Amino acid sequence: MILKQFSTADFSAFEQRYRAHFINSLSGFKSANLIGSQDENGITNLSMVSSVFHLGASPALMGMIIRPDTVPRDTLSNIKQTGVYTINHVSSDIYQQAHQTSARYDAEVSEFDEVGLTPQYLEGISAPFVGESLLKMSLAVREITPIKLNSTILVIGEITQVLVPETIINSDGFIDIEAIDSVAVSGLDSYHSTGRLSRLAYAKAKSKA
Amino acid sequence: MILKQFSTADFSAFEQRYRAHFINSLSGFKSANLIGSQDENGITNLSMVSSVFHLGASPALMGMIIRPDTVPRDTLSNIKQTGVYTINHVSSDIYQQAHQTSARYDAEVSEFDEVGLTPQYLEGISAPFVGESLLKMSLAVREITPIKLNSTILVIGEITQVLVPETIINSDGFIDIEAIDSVAVSGLDSYHSTGRLSRLAYAKAKSKA
Repeated sequence: MILKQFSTADFSAFEQRYRAHFINSLSGFKSANLIGSQDENGITNLSMVSSVFHLGASPALMGMIIRPDTVPRDTLSNIKQTGVYTINHVSSDIYQQAHQTSARYDAEVSEFDEVGLTPQYLEGISAPFVGESLLKMSLAVREITPIKLNSTILVIGEITQVLVPETIINSDGFIDIEAIDSVAVSGLDSYHSTGRLSRLAYAKAKSKA
Repeated sequence: MILKQFSTADFSAFEQRYRAHFINSLSGFKSANLIGSQDENGITNLSMVSSVFHLGASPALMGMIIRPDTVPRDTLSNIKQTGVYTINHVSSDIYQQAHQTSARYDAEVSEFDEVGLTPQYLEGISAPFVGESLLKMSLAVREITPIKLNSTILVIGEITQVLVPETIINSDGFIDIEAIDSVAVSGLDSYHSTGRLSRLAYAKAKSKA
């Protein structure tokens, strides 16, 4: 297959929206998560993000990138106020509602109401979970770091509670997120279901694949 | 479906490998990329990472997380020496070879030779691409930031060149990575092909999904 080469000058020449689609497609498949939060007055917020990533297992840390100029700005404001938020897997049942949370609703409007998802609470955690999500967790903020290169914000949280169906946890601790139809994202707006290829053994230098 | 609740104390009680599988599964689907690099003497290195993420479109920035205690340490060393690296999508054709690069080979050994992938060069770029990969890019290092919370390293690069089949670029700039069989990763070792659900329109507050 013939590949075409694009360089920095081409990116600059792209129309802005075209560039956003193009560059956002390059990293590969992304996670699809809803971030639940609320402000000090209890107004809930829900925002779709595809930038959540694993940062470490011990302590259990998760990172995500927030762009201050886009919709999750209420999320960032809430997280700063309360120090807590939830991450909720998006499944194929709710991906259209999840995507709709990226519309620019006013701060006093709850995306839960607007898109028809159900806030759910655990005692002692002042951030809403998504009732419809089958894998979700609460996090305590540990670090909020501005990325100077482009004014995005790296938010790092420590996982405090996890809710997951016990039936999808394998004996070695692996959680089969495909079994609950968690979706993957590519680019800005493309949603994908998955099909298992395989799990591979821990790679060792002497026994090739 | 009944969900089971796990808390911080449970994570601590997990056996170390069980915890790694469990926590690594929580973020959702991840990108599958091979990082190509070489040292000042031209010894090439190739390492599988699932931590590459989109950071911004203008400038075109990509982030990735490197754990200093695991295999990509040669990658980090090379990136510091030369200031350049490549990111190469992993497709279903090569995911087993890609996974095998995570074995602990000696620094003087090239993973390209060990797993049977082909180094490919563009003039002026002192890092190897993966010949078999159909979507790949070179990056110039812009920032290397230690994450104090767990001693991982955030590497941010600016994309300088992209190689991609022109036929999979949609008219709006979206690149159909499913058409070249790019895979998604879950947990530490699970590989997945994808099936498109749909692309959704830019969400607006007045027209619900």
